[in-house]
Parts: sequence; structure tokens; C-alpha cells
Amino acid sequence: MKNDFIAGYAKITEDALKKYMPEGDAAQKKLYDAMNYSIFAGGKRLRPMIMMMTAKMLGKPVDTVLPFACAMEMIHTYSLIHDDLPAMDNDDLRRGKPTNHKVFGEATAILAGDALLTKAFEIAAKYGTEYADSDKVVKAISILAEAAGSEGMVGGQVIDIFAEVEDLEQLKNMHALKTGAIIRASGVIGAVLSGADSEQINAIDSYCYNLGIAFQIQDDILDVLGSEESLGKPIGSDAENNKSTYVTLCGIDEAEKLQKEYIKKAKESLEIFENTEELSLLCDMLVNRKA
Amino acid sequence: MKNDFIAGYAKITEDALKKYMPEGDAAQKKLYDAMNYSIFAGGKRLRPMIMMMTAKMLGKPVDTVLPFACAMEMIHTYSLIHDDLPAMDNDDLRRGKPTNHKVFGEATAILAGDALLTKAFEIAAKYGTEYADSDKVVKAISILAEAAGSEGMVGGQVIDIFAEVEDLEQLKNMHALKTGAIIRASGVIGAVLSGADSEQINAIDSYCYNLGIAFQIQDDILDVLGSEESLGKPIGSDAENNKSTYVTLCGIDEAEKLQKEYIKKAKESLEIFENTEELSLLCDMLVNRKA
Repeated sequence: MKNDFIAGYAKITEDALKKYMPEGDAAQKKLYDAMNYSIFAGGKRLRPMIMMMTAKMLGKPVDTVLPFACAMEMIHTYSLIHDDLPAMDNDDLRRGKPTNHKVFGEATAILAGDALLTKAFEIAAKYGTEYADSDKVVKAISILAEAAGSEGMVGGQVIDIFAEVEDLEQLKNMHALKTGAIIRASGVIGAVLSGADSEQINAIDSYCYNLGIAFQIQDDILDVLGSEESLGKPIGSDAENNKSTYVTLCGIDEAEKLQKEYIKKAKESLEIFENTEELSLLCDMLVNRKA
Repeated sequence: MKNDFIAGYAKITEDALKKYMPEGDAAQKKLYDAMNYSIFAGGKRLRPMIMMMTAKMLGKPVDTVLPFACAMEMIHTYSLIHDDLPAMDNDDLRRGKPTNHKVFGEATAILAGDALLTKAFEIAAKYGTEYADSDKVVKAISILAEAAGSEGMVGGQVIDIFAEVEDLEQLKNMHALKTGAIIRASGVIGAVLSGADSEQINAIDSYCYNLGIAFQIQDDILDVLGSEESLGKPIGSDAENNKSTYVTLCGIDEAEKLQKEYIKKAKESLEIFENTEELSLLCDMLVNRKA
């Protein structure tokens, strides 16, 4: 059953992305190819899933959030393309495939990232109002942009590259921006578009905050224990790059203990809701994943 | 009088940008510094000006469009930062100052561009509704994103880098995307937020379309005739890079003749309006500029 509902959400996301992504024989076809290469490179679609599960838990059809779910995935994908660039992490592989700049060159990779980021806001604004009123759409766009920008994801990336991260508190703060902000925004936007009240929005936000940290801890554990084949990238790359992680800072055992605590907190945040089965299962699946 | 009203609009834009741009002692301060460096590097503020003049012509206070005017300038600025990168045009100077990546390094320049693009949508969504209803704000965000993305500015940049531009038609099509799309969007968003009807929106669109081409022709003429000092970048760089321009394709005299025709068409587009003095003067100033 587990795999079925996860696969179902992934398929809904893929189908919607196919509808929204540009294609065809334009003079800028190379750009479209580069955008499509990365958006359809086999992502887990975690952020769209959180958004859709939130809508469903709140009694709304998943369509309610579909344009924003795709927008969120476009923003996540652009961030991976830019993070992989030679000037940043200089990675050759992503999800087992050559990174965007390895296939299309650096200039096109930068522009494909720019175009995906821009397309996210286009899709949100152009199609969001098919499912929700304009007040909610504007609010959701504002949340999306704030989470993705200089006070969110991009800010976190700058800290990750340049700041010395030496203790757990600094590590948590960095991840809270770099990966946490758009995971939280996925749940919060799902709640806002579904007409949730502020108590419900805060509870979803808390669920995502804690899930996000547990998810990051799993990433750090897999970087040490995972296999290169299932991860699609070299293992041990964090340690090799002298990056602080939950594992390097407190060891595997303590990291796993911490992770359990965050998962517990995530599930407790759902207590005010009914129909929490999917979001609860998602926690277990994310920390049991091998890739 | 001319300089007064132009300087007035530029000052309104600068003041609003100061209000909207991030600052302070965050862990990502380096990012804020890079964003502020380029946004306050002495741009002409042409796009905000077009938007505000449009609102004023339509009888609205310029504040009506101020968040979007700043958003447009952020998008224009991010595009310059990314265009200057080593992987693209590899320029060392912009407006007489070292380019963003020369001062802050390539990684930060890429991220500062990303953050400015994202901030544009944040400001539009967060503050747009202080001056216009949500329906108009969503419509304006949609126009902004479409003009800036893969079917607009970014698409044009890809064509400029990779496609062979060999005749006037191809050159016009490239510029229609690369620089034309967001100039048109500046006028159209100004009209939409001011509650213009479709005839008025089309007329503003036509004005901007023609003004944009005349503006580009002036850029190409200045690249040959201008002085390095007043341009803030080396003259003759287009010819040196083997780039097709209005001047290389049809010579200075023909380019100047073409430019006059587009200015005439731009002014004719304003005939359905009253109070067209500022937008009309703007045409003359842009084609008489030396930098």
C-alpha cells in the first residue's frame, strides 16, 4: 500500500509538470532541453507530495495545490542545477546522471536554472487561480518567494559555502535555511491554499520543520553508510569536502537518536488533525530510505 | 525640466529599493552585500520609469506600481549579473565598475542573481496588494514571470549566445525576447495595475515594443560611436565579439533612420491617451543619450 500512494503522488506531479514545462521547436530549444533534462531526472517529488498530502488531509482535492506543487519542484530543481555548477560544488553526477552543466555546458545550465525559477512563479500565478482565489494565491506566492530567496534557501547556500559551521546549532541554522525553508513552505502553502486556519498552518509548519531536520540527518547518514549505486553520487563526499554534518559532529548513533526525536515531534504536530495516515507514513519512509 | 522629472522618478525608485532590499548582520551578509552592490550601481531605472509614467498617465499615483517597479529593476539587475559571468559574456566592467563576480566571486554572483530574481517576486506579492487588488497583482506577476523567463528574457539570452543571428529579422526576434519582453512588461504591468482596459493595454504594449527597439538601436550605435568613459565599458565590444547588431547589419545611417521610424511608431501608439508628455519625452531622451 505504501508504495502505491507514494507512486500515485509522484505520477500526478510528473503529469502536471509535463503539462506546464515548455517544449517544441523554438529558437531557444537548447534551453527547453536543459530545463526538461533536470526536471525529469527522477526526483523523489518530496515537496509536491507534502503539499498534496496536506491538501488531502484538510479535505481538499490534490488539484487545489497542483500548480504550486509543480512550482516548488521547479525551484528545488533549479537549486540543484546551480549548486552543482563548477563555481559551487562542482559535481559531475546527480541522481546517477551527468549534471546539467556536464551535458549542456555552464552557460546553459545557469540559464536553465534561471528559467526554472522564473517558470515556477509563472505557473503559480497563471494556473494557481484555477483552484484557489487570488488572495490565497498572492499569499502563497509570497511564502514561496520568501522561502526560496535570500532569507531562505539561497541564504542557506551562501552560509553553506562560506561560513564555518562548527557546532550543531550552526548546522541546524544553515539547514533551516538551505533545505528547511522550502520544505516548510511546501506544507504551509498546501495549508494556505486549502483554507486552513492559523492553528492548522502552525501545526503543519511544525510538522515540516521537524520532518526536514530528520530528512537532512538521513542524508548525512546515507553519505556515510549508503552505496554509491543507490545514491547516484559518490559516498563519503561530505567528509572528503570537510563539510560538517550531523554524523561528523555527533557520530552515527547520536545522529540516529536525534532523528528519532525529530520524527516523534513531527508526528506529534499532526495530533490536531484527522486523516494523518499519509503524512505520518511519509516520516517513516523518509528515514528508512536508502537513497 | 526634462532632467528634473527623470531624476525624480529615479529617486523614487532608489528610495523604494532601499526599503525593499535586505540588509543587516545576517550570516549571509556577503549575499546581501553582493545584491546591494549591483542594485545600487547607478542604473538608469528605465523600466521602473516606464511603469510609473504609465500609471501617472492613466491618472493613478506612482505608488500604485512601486513594488512592481522595484521587482522589475531587480529582475533587470539579476540578468546583468548573470550575463556578465565568465561562462557567459565574461565582462569585467559594468557601468564603469567591476562586475559582481569580479568583486564577490563567481559563486556569490550567481547566488546574488538568483536571490534578486526571487526577491522580485517576493516584493511583488508581499507589497503589491497594498496598492492594487489581488486579481490585478496575480495577473501582473504572471506577466512579469512570462516576460522574464524561457519564453522571454532568458530565452533571448540563449538565442544571443548560441544562435547565428544573420539578418535584421533574426536580430529583431532575439532582442524582442532578450530586452524587449521586460520593457513591454513594464508598460503592460503599469497599465494592468492602473486598471486600464484592453485597448489601453495594447496601446502601451505597442509604445513599449517600438521604444524597446529604438533603445536597442541606440545601444548598438553607442557601441561604435560612444566613448568608453561615458559608457562605462569598452567601446567596439560587439564588433570585437563578432556580434551582429543593427549597425553591423545595416550601417550607422540606416540604423539611425530605422530608429526614427520606431520612435515615430512609439509616439503614435500614445495617440489614444491624454497626458502623454512624459512618455513622449522619454523617447527623445533615450535616443539622444550618450550612455
